[in-house]
Amino acid sequence: MIKLACFGAGRIGQVHALNAAALPGAALVYIVDPVAGPEAKDLAARTGAIVTDVDTVFSDDTVDGILIASSTDSHAPLLHRAAAAKKAVFCEKPVSLDFAQVAEAARAVEASGIACMLGFQRRYDPSFRQVRDRIADGTAGRLEHVTMVSRDPTPPPASYVRTSGGMFRDTAIHDMDMCRFLLEEDIATVYATGSCLISPEIGETGDIDTLMITLTTVSGRMAQVINCRRGPLGYDQRLEALCEHEVLFVDNKPASSVRIARSDGSTAAPPMNYFIERFADAYRDEMTAFVDLIRDGTPALTTIRDGFEAQRLVEAAIVSATIGQVVAFGPNWMPEAAS
Amino acid sequence: MIKLACFGAGRIGQVHALNAAALPGAALVYIVDPVAGPEAKDLAARTGAIVTDVDTVFSDDTVDGILIASSTDSHAPLLHRAAAAKKAVFCEKPVSLDFAQVAEAARAVEASGIACMLGFQRRYDPSFRQVRDRIADGTAGRLEHVTMVSRDPTPPPASYVRTSGGMFRDTAIHDMDMCRFLLEEDIATVYATGSCLISPEIGETGDIDTLMITLTTVSGRMAQVINCRRGPLGYDQRLEALCEHEVLFVDNKPASSVRIARSDGSTAAPPMNYFIERFADAYRDEMTAFVDLIRDGTPALTTIRDGFEAQRLVEAAIVSATIGQVVAFGPNWMPEAAS
Amino acid sequence: MIKLACFGAGRIGQVHALNAAALPGAALVYIVDPVAGPEAKDLAARTGAIVTDVDTVFSDDTVDGILIASSTDSHAPLLHRAAAAKKAVFCEKPVSLDFAQVAEAARAVEASGIACMLGFQRRYDPSFRQVRDRIADGTAGRLEHVTMVSRDPTPPPASYVRTSGGMFRDTAIHDMDMCRFLLEEDIATVYATGSCLISPEIGETGDIDTLMITLTTVSGRMAQVINCRRGPLGYDQRLEALCEHEVLFVDNKPASSVRIARSDGSTAAPPMNYFIERFADAYRDEMTAFVDLIRDGTPALTTIRDGFEAQRLVEAAIVSATIGQVVAFGPNWMPEAAS
Amino acid sequence: MIKLACFGAGRIGQVHALNAAALPGAALVYIVDPVAGPEAKDLAARTGAIVTDVDTVFSDDTVDGILIASSTDSHAPLLHRAAAAKKAVFCEKPVSLDFAQVAEAARAVEASGIACMLGFQRRYDPSFRQVRDRIADGTAGRLEHVTMVSRDPTPPPASYVRTSGGMFRDTAIHDMDMCRFLLEEDIATVYATGSCLISPEIGETGDIDTLMITLTTVSGRMAQVINCRRGPLGYDQRLEALCEHEVLFVDNKPASSVRIARSDGSTAAPPMNYFIERFADAYRDEMTAFVDLIRDGTPALTTIRDGFEAQRLVEAAIVSATIGQVVAFGPNWMPEAAS
Repeated sequence: MIKLACFGAGRIGQVHALNAAALPGAALVYIVDPVAGPEAKDLAARTGAIVTDVDTVFSDDTVDGILIASSTDSHAPLLHRAAAAKKAVFCEKPVSLDFAQVAEAARAVEASGIACMLGFQRRYDPSFRQVRDRIADGTAGRLEHVTMVSRDPTPPPASYVRTSGGMFRDTAIHDMDMCRFLLEEDIATVYATGSCLISPEIGETGDIDTLMITLTTVSGRMAQVINCRRGPLGYDQRLEALCEHEVLFVDNKPASSVRIARSDGSTAAPPMNYFIERFADAYRDEMTAFVDLIRDGTPALTTIRDGFEAQRLVEAAIVSATIGQVVAFGPNWMPEAAS
Repeated sequence: MIKLACFGAGRIGQVHALNAAALPGAALVYIVDPVAGPEAKDLAARTGAIVTDVDTVFSDDTVDGILIASSTDSHAPLLHRAAAAKKAVFCEKPVSLDFAQVAEAARAVEASGIACMLGFQRRYDPSFRQVRDRIADGTAGRLEHVTMVSRDPTPPPASYVRTSGGMFRDTAIHDMDMCRFLLEEDIATVYATGSCLISPEIGETGDIDTLMITLTTVSGRMAQVINCRRGPLGYDQRLEALCEHEVLFVDNKPASSVRIARSDGSTAAPPMNYFIERFADAYRDEMTAFVDLIRDGTPALTTIRDGFEAQRLVEAAIVSATIGQVVAFGPNWMPEAAS
Repeated sequence: MIKLACFGAGRIGQVHALNAAALPGAALVYIVDPVAGPEAKDLAARTGAIVTDVDTVFSDDTVDGILIASSTDSHAPLLHRAAAAKKAVFCEKPVSLDFAQVAEAARAVEASGIACMLGFQRRYDPSFRQVRDRIADGTAGRLEHVTMVSRDPTPPPASYVRTSGGMFRDTAIHDMDMCRFLLEEDIATVYATGSCLISPEIGETGDIDTLMITLTTVSGRMAQVINCRRGPLGYDQRLEALCEHEVLFVDNKPASSVRIARSDGSTAAPPMNYFIERFADAYRDEMTAFVDLIRDGTPALTTIRDGFEAQRLVEAAIVSATIGQVVAFGPNWMPEAAS
Repeated sequence: MIKLACFGAGRIGQVHALNAAALPGAALVYIVDPVAGPEAKDLAARTGAIVTDVDTVFSDDTVDGILIASSTDSHAPLLHRAAAAKKAVFCEKPVSLDFAQVAEAARAVEASGIACMLGFQRRYDPSFRQVRDRIADGTAGRLEHVTMVSRDPTPPPASYVRTSGGMFRDTAIHDMDMCRFLLEEDIATVYATGSCLISPEIGETGDIDTLMITLTTVSGRMAQVINCRRGPLGYDQRLEALCEHEVLFVDNKPASSVRIARSDGSTAAPPMNYFIERFADAYRDEMTAFVDLIRDGTPALTTIRDGFEAQRLVEAAIVSATIGQVVAFGPNWMPEAAS
């Protein structure tokens, strides 16, 4: 029986804790939440875990792995403690909003040799994974161009935006990771541009609400990412991969199977709202993978290195959008703050 | 050069006349219309034909074929004249609203040996034909069950209904023909039911506006036809064929390629409105087939016999709906009036 | 806390037991399975319940409700015991393959006054329910015609067919219930026909593998049901409701969101396989409704009367298919065996 | 009666000539083709026009307008002659592969005051136009981001590529025009990148086969264009417009209405092949607009200025792809050769 502890009892913490508890061969033993309020207690009741504190978790030798689903600023410190305590770790993205801390945490984790998985759940989504598999096994032929659309249903409040690290860090990191997952080649150039088009409140914080990133690989293959804080059609998560033999689309998952046809057209249901529902399968499958990683050493689809590399691309996009020019990327490119 | 004459300059007459005139190797020489009004003159101007009378057409030995697109009551008499004059004939459905006349016209046409094609244009529609081809060539496997939906956008005026021969004869004949085209087997039973659900005006004429027909073949295969005088989504013409290896669908043809996605759903365009537009390809291809039939003897997909057989099924459906019971059909079943 | 006991630890028993255990405010305390093998034990471990026998359940006054998910022949006896013990009951369909037993069980349950819900889970499926809601609240306008397609992915083995009560009783009961749910009007006529088209093994048992049922209501509205033991496209569960203002479709739920476009066409994923997955939401929602019914008296969408009435329609369909004629149905029609 | 002359009897010349001849109120009187071979003669026979030479057309005072559908290098000289002869002109894109000639021709045409329409037929396509209309009339709200995909079914031969002016000039000009049509705002930056990914033969000519262009407007709105010489799914012409209230999609037009559902998925027909068929409506509507422009002065949706501006964007894209950096565009930006 693999014993797990979960840090964070908020929205995403609940998802991971419940998935962990439901897994055959795994048990959720601890929940740690700085607030330790009713959410943590309720989650404990539903999972059979105990609400406890950080030190108890790290000093309990029977704990095999920890789930980091607490606030972003706690990720890096907990990764360091997990590395020190030699506990396997599943960490929500991003590792940190400060790239220097990301690099440092990655080094510590890798030096420790612990198993570490990053929470890029889209890699575990059956649809995105099917696209990757068809490319990887040669069915689709070489991927030449990929376009990703990721839009949230409604803009977050300005208060959230102020502590988010900015839109590039907050939203584009999933897409940067998916580009790497599908292209599997060194990125040669990064071009990005952003605007505040929809939310004056966000504009007042100095941030943007709409962005676009273009990547080229060393061999000339291309990727485009389109992000917006507001999707007029709801939670909009799509992908189009132009490959040698076929074009692969990941469409939105409709919230219902009903189509309503009237004289002015036939209306299909809007996408599921929201990421918890859209990626329910993915969250379940990544927790299974984490337990398999601990128990059998089965390599996970994501590592701390993937977290580092996706964030490095995000930093390059920020530089590009800031200077208004293309960034010559490469294996050694580093943002100024971290170089 | 194949020389053709067209009877009727109304809506469907115009379609056939223009298609005939545009065909390489064919020429439309005459237009005959009882009214001989501006429609006929305009059609003559656009096709290079001359407006003339019935006798001129049949006494002109250079006329190879005639197109009967005039009013229903003129079909049978013109078929008899064509048979006597040994001219190839393309005749719009139905042959007659009186089944005894249908039978008589079929006998006369077949006895004369003239080439004769019935205007079941759906057999020439590329989509319906693709379904038939996949069944006929074995790709789809045996057809086990077929459902057809045919609904008009809006109910016709009561004045039209009064002279239409009733809804079964007016609308179901196309579907009966398509069932025969796809099943290619003797029909064993016919069950039909009809109601007046949507138009009190139609009800006052004693007719119905909604009907359903169920056929079984000798080997137990099945067909269902659903007709309505009003389609809430517009002109609704679909088919679903359950075959051994696949299910084949003919969907509606959308009027535009635009999809509009909002937070309450994604709306695709309604179907093309109306049959002239929806079946434009089919009308063009059937006229090509008629010219090929005259010039090269290439067998057409429809014969006078198909007109007779489809109408025999319609008559059985009327009997079934009238007595409220299943009709034991068979190769020799005949409606009372004609037996 | 509502305490529940589950009879049956097979496929559908597991679904209900797990859903019951996961419900806030409910606890699964007992599992009863005639075999009491590893399936029951494993299910007990995953739900926190105890494996016990029938008498223990009915003599335990703290048990509020029972779930009948055991073999069909146990349904009626358990319903009688639940009625006698005044315990609320959720019963899988069908009540019995013997209509006289269905009638008797319905009388006993209704006389006892216990809360009783039938396992017609489609009524709780969000998509089917949305269709019903749009009709019931007037948005769609009057329902005029409904077509239902229900096909299983592959035919069952002949051994299953032999004890199934025949295809009409085994598969059409869900569709009969859905017709009643949507039409909400007395049925006037029932016409049915069946064939053995796909499985010679099934034919050897004397049963059919393909059937069609047509209903008309007293006011002339219509319903058609198409069932097949094999769906070439997989588990095929669709509905098309022609209403006054719109046509409502329930499409299949695709197993993935990936579309693969090649030069020969664009391929969307097949439907989810199988009913456990397709109706996962529905099973969860109906268990919630059962607990709400026990706790608050909130009326469920299904009653024992719905089980009786759906089965009465199935019996009429069997008679129709047997005699090859239309059955004049009505509120008092009863199959011979039960009259 | 508006009298027209058509230069060019090749593929696109035939489309324009036949559309012109079919228009009520217009007559095609001349066809001019340098080859004057069977194609020109056949086209003359089908349209009632006479095959003649350039001088005859320009010296015939009864000719109201000319259609330039001959080879690209003849466009600019014919525009100059039309300007001199004060004849209305419809000109296929591009005006010239040499931007200085484009500028010069635009000046000459505008100075002459003749009516001039550029052959950007997508502006007349009912679907693209519907998108534009919903944006222009406020229904969709402000356009924030647009993505365009344009891919040909198969790469052209290297011989064609060598004289095409390069892929940017050959394929991206339609997309640049559509960006302008939809955004209706000054472009601030142009970023482009191209690769040879699919055709070594094209690579040997020094050209590319895959390209991407990103535009930003002065107010920060964005457009992305993806072009490829080969579409694995056929002729692939799509658009996605993210607007304030809705996302508008132009999907491909399927070649048939048949869907084929098997256990491995449901396959819809590939797009129509090729531009002649896909844009048949658009070609017909733009010729109608040209005649309306001549007869009534109804402004067309395209002018010589649109040709100039689209090509100016193409030239900026070429500069961007060449230097690997973003080009600061603006109303006065000019390529070096022309500045």
